[in-house]
Amino acid sequence: MKSAKPYIEKNKERFLEELIELLKIPSISADSAYKKDVLKTAEAVKKQLKKAGCDSVEICETPGYPIVYGEKIIDKKLPTILVYGHYDVQPPDPLDLWDSPPFEPVIKKTKLHPEGAIFARGSCDDKGQMYMHVKALEYMTSTNQLPCNVKFMIEGEEEVGSESLGWFVERNRKKLANDVILISDTGMIAPDVPSITTGLRGLSYVEVEVTGPNRDLHSGLYGGAVANPINILTKMIASLHDKNNHITIPGFYDDVQNLSKKEREKMAEAPFNLKDYEKALDIDAVYGEKGYSTNERNSIRPTLDVNGIWGGYTGEGAKTVIASKAFAKISMRLVPNQDWKKITELFTKHFESIAPTGVRVKVKPHHGGQAYVTPIDSLGYKAAEKAYEETFGKTPIPQRSGGSIPIVALFEKELKSKTILMGFGLDSDAIHSPNEHFGIWNYLKGIETIPQFYHFFTELSK
Amino acid sequence: MKSAKPYIEKNKERFLEELIELLKIPSISADSAYKKDVLKTAEAVKKQLKKAGCDSVEICETPGYPIVYGEKIIDKKLPTILVYGHYDVQPPDPLDLWDSPPFEPVIKKTKLHPEGAIFARGSCDDKGQMYMHVKALEYMTSTNQLPCNVKFMIEGEEEVGSESLGWFVERNRKKLANDVILISDTGMIAPDVPSITTGLRGLSYVEVEVTGPNRDLHSGLYGGAVANPINILTKMIASLHDKNNHITIPGFYDDVQNLSKKEREKMAEAPFNLKDYEKALDIDAVYGEKGYSTNERNSIRPTLDVNGIWGGYTGEGAKTVIASKAFAKISMRLVPNQDWKKITELFTKHFESIAPTGVRVKVKPHHGGQAYVTPIDSLGYKAAEKAYEETFGKTPIPQRSGGSIPIVALFEKELKSKTILMGFGLDSDAIHSPNEHFGIWNYLKGIETIPQFYHFFTELSK
Repeated sequence: MKSAKPYIEKNKERFLEELIELLKIPSISADSAYKKDVLKTAEAVKKQLKKAGCDSVEICETPGYPIVYGEKIIDKKLPTILVYGHYDVQPPDPLDLWDSPPFEPVIKKTKLHPEGAIFARGSCDDKGQMYMHVKALEYMTSTNQLPCNVKFMIEGEEEVGSESLGWFVERNRKKLANDVILISDTGMIAPDVPSITTGLRGLSYVEVEVTGPNRDLHSGLYGGAVANPINILTKMIASLHDKNNHITIPGFYDDVQNLSKKEREKMAEAPFNLKDYEKALDIDAVYGEKGYSTNERNSIRPTLDVNGIWGGYTGEGAKTVIASKAFAKISMRLVPNQDWKKITELFTKHFESIAPTGVRVKVKPHHGGQAYVTPIDSLGYKAAEKAYEETFGKTPIPQRSGGSIPIVALFEKELKSKTILMGFGLDSDAIHSPNEHFGIWNYLKGIETIPQFYHFFTELSK
Repeated sequence: MKSAKPYIEKNKERFLEELIELLKIPSISADSAYKKDVLKTAEAVKKQLKKAGCDSVEICETPGYPIVYGEKIIDKKLPTILVYGHYDVQPPDPLDLWDSPPFEPVIKKTKLHPEGAIFARGSCDDKGQMYMHVKALEYMTSTNQLPCNVKFMIEGEEEVGSESLGWFVERNRKKLANDVILISDTGMIAPDVPSITTGLRGLSYVEVEVTGPNRDLHSGLYGGAVANPINILTKMIASLHDKNNHITIPGFYDDVQNLSKKEREKMAEAPFNLKDYEKALDIDAVYGEKGYSTNERNSIRPTLDVNGIWGGYTGEGAKTVIASKAFAKISMRLVPNQDWKKITELFTKHFESIAPTGVRVKVKPHHGGQAYVTPIDSLGYKAAEKAYEETFGKTPIPQRSGGSIPIVALFEKELKSKTILMGFGLDSDAIHSPNEHFGIWNYLKGIETIPQFYHFFTELSK
């Protein structure tokens, strides 16, 4: 495989323009008001896959948002790579914290991105990283270098739990048959420290509702005499961690796979500067489970975080009201061997059990997924390692990530193949946050590295 | 003073229509988007005071919303009654819990209001109760029975802390000089159990902000490793009550005036049915400070309630985010002898002190007011007692209310006169809540009772 560098240099402007067009469509899967835009994005992805060289591309209906499926089969005897990505994005709020509108992409230079970065919702997660694969395919087909078969499966519900993906995969095992799954939906340590994600956390996401009196009450007339659902909710949530920040849900840690002392020592060798970390987040101290380092807390340990809370009067000024209801969205990140369905049940049972008299509690499971650890001695991992060595001139570091891509475990179960997580974003790219961005250097480096993976995977498979 | 009953019977429809017109204007003082409507309401009140017989009415500018001032001085040697009320209303949200739009008044019969009630924001608090006084004046002037001087002071900022009222009163002591202040902005026990409010709680209202990382973070990549402002906020709020529901702020109870055993025994004699109370609110149990009854908890004991909480993703679906900030609005109801400014300081100091490292905390005081207890042997109280006896055929019960009208203490300090709280609403009228209403019977009974107060107060003053 020849280096894609000259081709990229020649087509750089167009590669950026095409991605920017895709980023302009607000494909927010969590909010049904954007349904048309989500569907429009699927059409745009279909069009680009076709242009990049897929023989056939289809928009596959599901119970939810459609999956864009494309393929180019050059020889059934050659190995097949299945590329997975998603065309939906996170909701952009809080909108007032964006420096530029989330769906009007702009290019700006930053300290970590001296060559410029595209600021827009979805630029890194995952439109930008997904589109690297489309452009890598274009390079290989237009230069007649595609060394194996390729299938694309781009979904539109990743940010809301990939509910339809399982349905689709179960019904299309044959169509999706492959030798390795390739995903770019994670990050790397730094531009000069390439890394491959080898572990992902699982997830259980729930919404809780606490109901007190049957209507909002005047806090003067009733204050002190009835259970205030917001006060109760804060009490219940606060009780979910003990003073050492261990989670108090009975049985929560039962299945946690603990790392050996040796493994933890090896982890501690990864480059990490606590002062820089704190400075980047503008915090005076980190915070978390006693007995674990920051890097352990956000990768090999399970967590419980409130992602949203609301109740009562939240407008301008003051209102003296006791709300009838209070709500919270709570997610738990899980580690290998914890079953997300079991954890969801444990949470529900426990949360209901700690509700005091005077209130009623409802727990609504949103979605979840299993944690995943990938071996570093697989064919896929070795091919990825060689690809990075080729384009970065360095051996990538295997890295456990705190994030979750719940479908990775599903793929292994249903399609019996390993997933390689080649992420090109940086932790500081603010995915899921205001001012999400993706470095142009990273985008182009991804396009350059991916064809090398195709090459080495095909070679190693011989 | 002849009974106003025949006059009311004759003019009933017009009295209702005029009030309904006033209720249609959304005079929400807490939300600056409604500024025009608040000002429009002041104009409407001015017009009606003039029509009801005031000699002069003016719209007095203040640093905030204007105060409508009107007077009819018939003889400087006769006593002067100062009527206070407010033309602003609480925000109507949550809007989706209203059975009819809050500013499109409708009349419906209810179990407690078999003659019908007007459903609209402000119907009871306080447009309806304020307007009883305008119509009572109309009765007295149009039938040549006004026995004394009367002054009206109707403000537009009661629901946001009456900030401009103190400014106005301090600058107009002479203009506002009076022998008694009359307010209808409280309730009564039941249509067949008339009562006069003799105690009000004070108030300290604050807003708190907890800031963690400088931007919203992905809960997978950072979850477990940094302080989550929402989790921290719930922990901090939860810690403000101990397991007996005592408030844990050091010094909070220091100045609380405790009632004697005898006084508490007398309070316990007031008609109250716990089962009915629970049933009306659809709760399985009441909840509150250990060692006190429900009626004590909501009147003679101070409280701390969260009136609103928000942070993170609160939209449809799921978002895996660690918010940068979390907020809450918290109010404390205070009892006689607790100083609201001191309590606000104690709260602020304590709340800042319990913030863990990893977050920063801001406390913003909104507004407050002192608690108040009125003697039941004053001229004003006796006149009110006689007025109720005349129109209800029953001696009213003196009652401590849990609500706050912070300006009552201010009036006593600045104008050196006692306030009589003649409330005609019911606790179930849902003030500050969706579906606020005011019974037509109560409205008309107020118009009937007020002229009798004028009569007896003038007689007793001789």
